[in-house]
Amino acid sequence: MNIKIVLFILGRLLIIEGIFMGISSLVSLFYNDSDFIYIISSSAITISIGLTTFLLVKKNIDKNLKKREGFLIVSLVWVLFSFFGALPYYLSGSILSYTDAFFETMSGFTTTGATILNDIESLSHGLLFWRSLTQWLGGMGIIVLSIAILPLLGVGGMQLFVAESPGPTLDKLHPRIQETAKRLWGLYIGFTIAEILLLSISEMSWFDAINHSFTTMASGGYSTKQASIAHWDSPYIHYVITLFMFIAGINFSLSYFAVNFKFKKVLKNEEFRLYIITILVASTIGTIILFINGDGLEYSFRESIFQVVSIITTTGYVTVDYLTWPPLLLMILFTLMFFGSSAGSTSGGIKLVRILIVFKNSAMELKRLIHPKAIIPIRLNKTPVEQQVVTNVLAFIALYIMTFVVGVLIMTAEGLDLESAMGAAIATLGNVGPGIGKVGPAETYAFISDFEKWVLSFLMLLGRLELFTVIVLFSPYFWKK
Amino acid sequence: MNIKIVLFILGRLLIIEGIFMGISSLVSLFYNDSDFIYIISSSAITISIGLTTFLLVKKNIDKNLKKREGFLIVSLVWVLFSFFGALPYYLSGSILSYTDAFFETMSGFTTTGATILNDIESLSHGLLFWRSLTQWLGGMGIIVLSIAILPLLGVGGMQLFVAESPGPTLDKLHPRIQETAKRLWGLYIGFTIAEILLLSISEMSWFDAINHSFTTMASGGYSTKQASIAHWDSPYIHYVITLFMFIAGINFSLSYFAVNFKFKKVLKNEEFRLYIITILVASTIGTIILFINGDGLEYSFRESIFQVVSIITTTGYVTVDYLTWPPLLLMILFTLMFFGSSAGSTSGGIKLVRILIVFKNSAMELKRLIHPKAIIPIRLNKTPVEQQVVTNVLAFIALYIMTFVVGVLIMTAEGLDLESAMGAAIATLGNVGPGIGKVGPAETYAFISDFEKWVLSFLMLLGRLELFTVIVLFSPYFWKK
Repeated sequence: MNIKIVLFILGRLLIIEGIFMGISSLVSLFYNDSDFIYIISSSAITISIGLTTFLLVKKNIDKNLKKREGFLIVSLVWVLFSFFGALPYYLSGSILSYTDAFFETMSGFTTTGATILNDIESLSHGLLFWRSLTQWLGGMGIIVLSIAILPLLGVGGMQLFVAESPGPTLDKLHPRIQETAKRLWGLYIGFTIAEILLLSISEMSWFDAINHSFTTMASGGYSTKQASIAHWDSPYIHYVITLFMFIAGINFSLSYFAVNFKFKKVLKNEEFRLYIITILVASTIGTIILFINGDGLEYSFRESIFQVVSIITTTGYVTVDYLTWPPLLLMILFTLMFFGSSAGSTSGGIKLVRILIVFKNSAMELKRLIHPKAIIPIRLNKTPVEQQVVTNVLAFIALYIMTFVVGVLIMTAEGLDLESAMGAAIATLGNVGPGIGKVGPAETYAFISDFEKWVLSFLMLLGRLELFTVIVLFSPYFWKK
Repeated sequence: MNIKIVLFILGRLLIIEGIFMGISSLVSLFYNDSDFIYIISSSAITISIGLTTFLLVKKNIDKNLKKREGFLIVSLVWVLFSFFGALPYYLSGSILSYTDAFFETMSGFTTTGATILNDIESLSHGLLFWRSLTQWLGGMGIIVLSIAILPLLGVGGMQLFVAESPGPTLDKLHPRIQETAKRLWGLYIGFTIAEILLLSISEMSWFDAINHSFTTMASGGYSTKQASIAHWDSPYIHYVITLFMFIAGINFSLSYFAVNFKFKKVLKNEEFRLYIITILVASTIGTIILFINGDGLEYSFRESIFQVVSIITTTGYVTVDYLTWPPLLLMILFTLMFFGSSAGSTSGGIKLVRILIVFKNSAMELKRLIHPKAIIPIRLNKTPVEQQVVTNVLAFIALYIMTFVVGVLIMTAEGLDLESAMGAAIATLGNVGPGIGKVGPAETYAFISDFEKWVLSFLMLLGRLELFTVIVLFSPYFWKK
């Protein structure tokens, strides 16, 4: 293990985090908040530690970055970012327990959106901005960002990129990894600005428009309001946010083709089609049920599609307490929490392309029952999928379910009922935020025990990095010479 | 499709069912029950229809049995057996709705043990005996029985055998399929007699001893008492039943080796080891929790191991309402409902060998992350597992979970809450019987709507025949020329 290169890169990344914290402190300054000093101090601490680490190891460094170091760096950077990112909340005294501050920050970077805050609106502008910013940075990816803005990684950027965005298929938008990262971030920033502009012409303030655009595009779901999007009783706002949540759930490579007018490539994509169909089916059922139950047609449609898109993209915004909906709708939402949307999007969950591959594999097995000798590969977007990819996807889903079950077991061990435990486990592992039961959309995670908050934080990390990158660190193969 | 051979075999099998119904009517006669006439009539109807069908098609029959016919026969025979097997309940008026009678019979043959009866003890001896007998016949398998006692199938016995017992590995005890079937049934009968003898020396009556031995060895769980095994407050009875449930959850091929003193083969079997370990871990946790909660040590141990073995073998007997247990224990039991025990046993669920293969595949994927070029097969009992088997197992589990989710969606559609819907879906798909929530161990399925009873009956069938055999009938490949 080349520890020096690990520290070298981590040090540089911490400096980046410190700079973003510094920007948040400026927001605090702008609004004359009293906690400016605490945020700028957090920034200074983070930058100095990053700088010291970086300077200490930079001599005679062996810039050869192997797979192992890649996994270690990516896992560690997410933990470290949360560790230091919690400082502004903690030093300012806005969150009294460090565990809570860490939970809130991990929930930010992983774009989960689960909160321990029972009074979000009491936070200062600077802290609210930092809170939304953690999601925005985590959404497209810390590593991807670093690759885009710094020639820093030069060495092994690809390794790190793959470890952070480990989906079953990797679409390179450009042969050079830095160019790919730049295009992804460019698109991400473009969409964010578009949403800010559209929201700013509503009754939302500029501040709220910026924050919500950050957390929409990240599929994060942090709101500046305790009531989340339900705070605004405006169809316009609901529809604009639905649209951008939907965009955030599309593979950004596909969106890149779309903005370059290559629509054919988008419409032929099977994952994209499944995404559209799932949303249409789920929100149609939702509309019908809510309408039958006596809500107006437009309202039924709007609430359904908003909540369906919010959950399938694992954003986690709420306009209504869906726990009060009929059981069928609740079960649909619960299932969508596992699904997630597209690979290469900012959403969490298993990802639709994996669900698609599993479906196709099962269909193929049925075919093999009748024609045992037929060796026909599964096809995705008309291209054969290698057997190795299929096995990997199936292993991923198996691991995902095992992790979920272990999560539920731990949550029930401290007395949480089954439904709430399942809700908490999938809402964090799937990076959704609100779950079902006692961690439903109208509740927070404040009442959970400290131990369980650490477990849930770990589940968020596992979900965001898609299991393998983190779990491999705990396997004996990793540490064997 | 060779319809004639399908009808030919179905006709013969119906005659066998009719004969067993006849035996049940004799029990009724022996106890001077008033419903003797209804049971013997049901028997007569079944035999005549079977005989007529058989005689109508037996001329010029093409005895060539292909895979397709195998799947069709096996699926149909389980449906037909339930269809005719419901007659004694329905004709005698003991169960007023035919839907309920069908549900009760399908729950019997599939060894599920879910009941719609709110007053089991009001049934006559003959009907109780028939109810237990359906489980006993379904436990080792209708087809396996037919192969053992009749040279009938001669043609394609192997096809049918595989379709009925489709586990990932098939252990032949003898090159001849009829000999294998004979040995399996011989062992099954032997264990059943041993349990009858051991139970008969307790405070149980002979009648109850016979019925409970039938339903223990079948991992069925039908009891002659409304309170299930809790009816007897006898540690001896509880331990004897635990022992035989445990035996019923072992692969019968392994048990065959064991009774032939080939213990090494048994102890080296990885699925058997996982079975032991799972039971030990789960019941130790159970014992500790119940003990801490204030129960006596022996009582805590007995209740835990009884319930753990009852659930993992998917028997479904109860000595205590486990819904009152702490959430962790409930979650453990809920998880075990998915597991089931060994392939080749009479239990339901996914089966431990499949869980084992999935675990190993996931571990292998972690290894491949570090050594991408390593091509190392998964090993089971020191033998490499073919890639095709792995893919099949993963497809099975994926289909299992999809079926479960669809089941839950349908159950919630008529308003059942999430927890009860999950309980009902896995309790039937896993052939367990009692679930969680409103279909918990202290409740029955009587309150469920007719439509949902048909859906649950279908889930039982899917679970018993391990999905593929039934689902393939609904795939376009099956009906294509």
